[in-house]
Amino acid sequence: MAKIAEDVIAAENARAGAALEADYAALGEQLARRGVDIDAVKRKVAGYGVAIPSWGVGTGGTRFARFPGPGEPRDIFDKLDDCAVIHRLTGATPTVSLHIPWDMAPAEDLNSKAEELGLGFDAMNSNTFQDQPGQARSYKFGSLSHSDPATRAQAVEHNLECIALGREIGSKALTVWVGDGSNFPGQANFTRQFERYLEAAKAIYAALPGDWRLFTEHKMYEPAFYSTVVQDWGTNYLIAQELGDKAFCLVDLGHHAPNVNIEMIVARLIRFGKLGGFHFNDSKYGDDDLDTGSIDPYRLFLVFNELVEAEGVPGFDPAHMLDQSHNVTDPIESLMVSAMEVQRAYAQALLVDRAALAGFQDANDALMASATLKAAFRTDVEPILAMARREKGAAADPVAAYRASGYRARVAAERPAASGSGGGIV
Amino acid sequence: MAKIAEDVIAAENARAGAALEADYAALGEQLARRGVDIDAVKRKVAGYGVAIPSWGVGTGGTRFARFPGPGEPRDIFDKLDDCAVIHRLTGATPTVSLHIPWDMAPAEDLNSKAEELGLGFDAMNSNTFQDQPGQARSYKFGSLSHSDPATRAQAVEHNLECIALGREIGSKALTVWVGDGSNFPGQANFTRQFERYLEAAKAIYAALPGDWRLFTEHKMYEPAFYSTVVQDWGTNYLIAQELGDKAFCLVDLGHHAPNVNIEMIVARLIRFGKLGGFHFNDSKYGDDDLDTGSIDPYRLFLVFNELVEAEGVPGFDPAHMLDQSHNVTDPIESLMVSAMEVQRAYAQALLVDRAALAGFQDANDALMASATLKAAFRTDVEPILAMARREKGAAADPVAAYRASGYRARVAAERPAASGSGGGIV
Amino acid sequence: MAKIAEDVIAAENARAGAALEADYAALGEQLARRGVDIDAVKRKVAGYGVAIPSWGVGTGGTRFARFPGPGEPRDIFDKLDDCAVIHRLTGATPTVSLHIPWDMAPAEDLNSKAEELGLGFDAMNSNTFQDQPGQARSYKFGSLSHSDPATRAQAVEHNLECIALGREIGSKALTVWVGDGSNFPGQANFTRQFERYLEAAKAIYAALPGDWRLFTEHKMYEPAFYSTVVQDWGTNYLIAQELGDKAFCLVDLGHHAPNVNIEMIVARLIRFGKLGGFHFNDSKYGDDDLDTGSIDPYRLFLVFNELVEAEGVPGFDPAHMLDQSHNVTDPIESLMVSAMEVQRAYAQALLVDRAALAGFQDANDALMASATLKAAFRTDVEPILAMARREKGAAADPVAAYRASGYRARVAAERPAASGSGGGIV
Amino acid sequence: MAKIAEDVIAAENARAGAALEADYAALGEQLARRGVDIDAVKRKVAGYGVAIPSWGVGTGGTRFARFPGPGEPRDIFDKLDDCAVIHRLTGATPTVSLHIPWDMAPAEDLNSKAEELGLGFDAMNSNTFQDQPGQARSYKFGSLSHSDPATRAQAVEHNLECIALGREIGSKALTVWVGDGSNFPGQANFTRQFERYLEAAKAIYAALPGDWRLFTEHKMYEPAFYSTVVQDWGTNYLIAQELGDKAFCLVDLGHHAPNVNIEMIVARLIRFGKLGGFHFNDSKYGDDDLDTGSIDPYRLFLVFNELVEAEGVPGFDPAHMLDQSHNVTDPIESLMVSAMEVQRAYAQALLVDRAALAGFQDANDALMASATLKAAFRTDVEPILAMARREKGAAADPVAAYRASGYRARVAAERPAASGSGGGIV
Repeated sequence: MAKIAEDVIAAENARAGAALEADYAALGEQLARRGVDIDAVKRKVAGYGVAIPSWGVGTGGTRFARFPGPGEPRDIFDKLDDCAVIHRLTGATPTVSLHIPWDMAPAEDLNSKAEELGLGFDAMNSNTFQDQPGQARSYKFGSLSHSDPATRAQAVEHNLECIALGREIGSKALTVWVGDGSNFPGQANFTRQFERYLEAAKAIYAALPGDWRLFTEHKMYEPAFYSTVVQDWGTNYLIAQELGDKAFCLVDLGHHAPNVNIEMIVARLIRFGKLGGFHFNDSKYGDDDLDTGSIDPYRLFLVFNELVEAEGVPGFDPAHMLDQSHNVTDPIESLMVSAMEVQRAYAQALLVDRAALAGFQDANDALMASATLKAAFRTDVEPILAMARREKGAAADPVAAYRASGYRARVAAERPAASGSGGGIV
Repeated sequence: MAKIAEDVIAAENARAGAALEADYAALGEQLARRGVDIDAVKRKVAGYGVAIPSWGVGTGGTRFARFPGPGEPRDIFDKLDDCAVIHRLTGATPTVSLHIPWDMAPAEDLNSKAEELGLGFDAMNSNTFQDQPGQARSYKFGSLSHSDPATRAQAVEHNLECIALGREIGSKALTVWVGDGSNFPGQANFTRQFERYLEAAKAIYAALPGDWRLFTEHKMYEPAFYSTVVQDWGTNYLIAQELGDKAFCLVDLGHHAPNVNIEMIVARLIRFGKLGGFHFNDSKYGDDDLDTGSIDPYRLFLVFNELVEAEGVPGFDPAHMLDQSHNVTDPIESLMVSAMEVQRAYAQALLVDRAALAGFQDANDALMASATLKAAFRTDVEPILAMARREKGAAADPVAAYRASGYRARVAAERPAASGSGGGIV
Repeated sequence: MAKIAEDVIAAENARAGAALEADYAALGEQLARRGVDIDAVKRKVAGYGVAIPSWGVGTGGTRFARFPGPGEPRDIFDKLDDCAVIHRLTGATPTVSLHIPWDMAPAEDLNSKAEELGLGFDAMNSNTFQDQPGQARSYKFGSLSHSDPATRAQAVEHNLECIALGREIGSKALTVWVGDGSNFPGQANFTRQFERYLEAAKAIYAALPGDWRLFTEHKMYEPAFYSTVVQDWGTNYLIAQELGDKAFCLVDLGHHAPNVNIEMIVARLIRFGKLGGFHFNDSKYGDDDLDTGSIDPYRLFLVFNELVEAEGVPGFDPAHMLDQSHNVTDPIESLMVSAMEVQRAYAQALLVDRAALAGFQDANDALMASATLKAAFRTDVEPILAMARREKGAAADPVAAYRASGYRARVAAERPAASGSGGGIV
Repeated sequence: MAKIAEDVIAAENARAGAALEADYAALGEQLARRGVDIDAVKRKVAGYGVAIPSWGVGTGGTRFARFPGPGEPRDIFDKLDDCAVIHRLTGATPTVSLHIPWDMAPAEDLNSKAEELGLGFDAMNSNTFQDQPGQARSYKFGSLSHSDPATRAQAVEHNLECIALGREIGSKALTVWVGDGSNFPGQANFTRQFERYLEAAKAIYAALPGDWRLFTEHKMYEPAFYSTVVQDWGTNYLIAQELGDKAFCLVDLGHHAPNVNIEMIVARLIRFGKLGGFHFNDSKYGDDDLDTGSIDPYRLFLVFNELVEAEGVPGFDPAHMLDQSHNVTDPIESLMVSAMEVQRAYAQALLVDRAALAGFQDANDALMASATLKAAFRTDVEPILAMARREKGAAADPVAAYRASGYRARVAAERPAASGSGGGIV
């Protein structure tokens, strides 16, 4: 169980009680007039979950500095404790996604800790964008696409280890993101580098269990600043197509060029059966890894509009995970709020009058089509979310309950203070 | 023959004579030291041609205004006269690409005019982004992807007419660019709109002669400002794959998101056998349609670096065309300079020491790999280009010769002044 | 009076009645719990107005094509009729902004028409980005910054005419936007071009009546595609500073570089006393001129958050105007919806708990600061807006009332069909 | 003296000898025909110097990882050794810019080391974007603009220390770059944050020696990802204006929004007397800190075109410094090549026929104006640069001489291997 006193939650929920019920009732009436059953929406929202990345519960940083907060988790077991708090209070994050080697631990220990906390394990994440102490070959110039076959083999081998651990802890997917690319025109031959990537990816794919999925992730730039091997969804699609039926494309909302229409990419990947899932976050400039929905909530809604539109398409089952860098907030708070923002977008998308929308689209009534989406988006669905939480025993207001619980102060006392590390770059 | 007096060219070439020879000799010596045979490069450059779009010889405009110059061409025959001047002086633009219905005319007349001028016909371009007088159905809400089947059928039919005329005048390709998209989230259902596009494109493809190619062109935005059906190379690739072996992707350099690595897209399309060709131009902000190489000449070089790298790949035969909007220059001058800039990038790319480059790439010597490209790029190949022109009887300095010829003043006297047309938009 | 039957509005309002009252009451209760008096907010919203640009009621276009709709206004008097409909139904657009020479007409006629319709006149807009028939000198290469003094003088003179007409019809401001710039590196000397602009702007400023304001407008690009004289707020500020106390900067939301934080620019201009006002619209790529709030409603809210924050600052009185291009919708409908979106953002910004926000800011509680804004933004203020409209005799649902009124069909019968005009550019 | 054997340079220079002389002579002839005295250009190039940032000689990193190379400098004295090598081989980098506290050392030791190596000290750089061990207050939420006065005072104090050290070592400028900003809408009040920044900056400015300059640096984003206090040149200009005559704006080429016309910003700052200098680098996406001229050499040339244009303007004396992150190359090699690229752009800009250019500009002959710049840019000035180096005893080919010298292997043997440090962020 998460280390949050039950009575704190109960007290907070009691405090919110009457107002929540009034707001829920008023919204229910309004939605009934619009032909929507609020309880049906609430049930779908209650059944929705998004995975927490284990690394998300630590304070993030930039290439300039990292400013840790109190009570930074020391290892995967501390991280799981933090993740359990998030799920305990939101009821929306039943699984955790591990990153290897950061989270390497005996499967038995991981399983018993997860069972104790009531958590499951989502996709495994490999890391070939950093060198680890004692590592034979460096990834300075690439990993799966490195010009040296031995380096590629080492990177493949690492991914197989991730699969091996994942099998033992009940994961069903491997997410592969590599930073391979180049910093200078000419540094890499685009085509030969890509061939090497494909060859290595095929070796990983060959080792994938039958009931697993392989998610490859595209990113426009960073850490490579001139070219990146898997730079966009076009290349990502080609990879998934080359690999086979278990290979899918992962969409991180912050990994695209400026101005790109991401919801359209989502639609294309759905249409061609290759949408694997999401890394949710928000961004204003590059891969800013800001809290989901904090910058452009309408864009998040438009992504969910595509997902709800595709519900029922055979085989459609994208994975949902948060992937953020919490530089100035308590990571637990940011992850709770972000999980709720994802739920909010989902709830809003469920409110879209799809029959009316289709009619406006066929009639080229652009104004009413837009208005149909906006009407759903501007509905304040907070009462639905809060009620769904309260009914499953989570907190109506998770941040308030978390602050009231004193959890952060408690772990800060238990866990030694981390020192900030800074880059050497201006 | 082009309406340029032979003696003007001869006089200009004579004037440039000694200096050109000195520069050519000095460069030849330098290149010999670098292991390059200047004459071999010159021969390849001399054999290179880029197509002129018929619409390029008229002054372009923006949505705010168009400011015509003197002697605007009145019809396709005037345009062919202007194109012949460009080819006469540069020797680099042997073909013209027609745009239907703007250039609609009896095939017989087109053929005899072209023969008289020594020109050929490149790809045909259809137009379903404007309404024509008397047209049964409007393209206001789309063409090939319109929600109304009759509008789609009209757009398909128009493309078939383009093919029909093209067959009679010796064209071997159809270029299809549509502006279909949407201006509001919700206006179009991305997937259904795309299905309709695919269905219509397949109908066009089915009518394509066996020795033709179909080029589809992607564009991020404009004239649609929220979504565009063929928005990027990923969607473009999927279209070409769905259609079949004769379908290829056309790359317009100005049709991408900010910061996108275009040369990498070129490499990917080559790798998967779907690079159809180019619309060359330059841009700083959006689809600015500026003169090729005028903003970022190194980017143009990097594209040609990929093309030279791919020379010899079986089936590799991309089409080259200029596609620009000349708002503040004499279009003939801009097209001449642009054709020479394309040749320049080609010549520079031919100078890359590819064996050394491959070695630096394999050794991850990023600095020397970059230096290898830069050494080729910074070589002033103008003497090679000028000598190639002079040797084929074109002008060493086409702009000087053109200005000396008085052509523009002559056609301004023959052709009535066009009035500017302006939009109604701030 | 606007040509909308009173009984249509009454019938529509009656239809919406009970539901609106229930929603308003429920929201009122919720806001009361949050310490907000809903009626006070409603009064502020009811008092808010945004100007309509006369050109906005015509269908817009792109450089590729324009697809007119039925009943396009033929002249400024038709436009005023359309503007009156917008104000009649929304109660939110009491003034119209004229564009000269498009709207040139005898002041007496303008005044009597406006009086009849219950409309006023907002800022005057000059046009030196197009050539008019019979104009002595062309603006092809610039207007206020042209290298030729006579062209500059002509452009100045035109602005003086705008002021002259404006004085007669009660306008109190002149908005100057020029497209002057360049399409090629080297075409213009940045500094000399700017000096010429400043000199011309000073001549206009010198003729400004004492109670007028001069608004200059920056824009990153288009119609110039390499450089623009007034390219950003930095240059715009310098201009306003050079000119004097009556000179202010106008912010068009679509005129910035990708990713730019516009709300911060607004804050800076407020801080330095130079925010003149807004051209509201929305955009995804460039100056897309889409309907306000249709793409990124949170960004619009953040702009209004700055405006509400600055309420009460001495001398703070920015002008509010819509400036959009309606390519695929009925312009009247788009303008009504956009005026309401501006009101919506204002209403949401009024709900921000500013004392709490300031506290979170001082305490660096980023999460709660963000949550404070989001709580205001996600409040569905539609009942406030609708109630404010109904109480002033406008329509609770303006689009429904407009469609029910048959206005478009009526004017389509009276006004001859316009033909689409297309560019010649691919 | 730099630790490079004299005979290595001599041998390399001898090897290049005849070819260099031939190329120089041929270019001299060509330039003479164009009315340019090659020796005069060479003299100006020989007199040109760009400062090296002390941190540039260490391997840089990203937020994901840092992959150190052999022989990383351990302290400022190692760094000065490396800088001396760069200057010894290029003759183009006579000064070093220190970063405090990274380079904190007794002034006496710094002076004697610099004297020994023949180096001088350029601008001082303060660091309030990282926390240092033992620091009283954290910069997690800002430094000069922090909401806490004590934190601001600490940041001011640090800058005063930088000035104090700088006075002792002969520096004449302080460069202030802060990462202060926010990651969430609402986190910071834009105006109050800016007021605090101004107040703190004024305190620093007040302590500036009379013959010093203060350079403030703007940056669009990173490390703050929603807003940055000094986000663009507009704000930077306002700061310099508020502070006074010794305050100037520093332009880092990588700190702007996508597509922004940087050379125009340079021109504006020159016009208003506030251009302080440059941090040279190149970028494709964000603040990529790539090697100068490696991505868009024409843009670099256009910046120098503005600088050469402004030569002779009273008081015009911008500081030139490299500022790059060398992630995949030997930093010494990258800095040498980058210094030469800056010289190259300067040499090319010197070749512009300014009288002809001004004539084309006045005549609106955009094509010839563009051609005038392009003719200068495409001239291969390498013989001028190499000859200038050789004549001052530096290396004709610095990279070749450096590699032949064995310097890196020698320092790798002396300096312990650094371990890579990685972030914890995906």
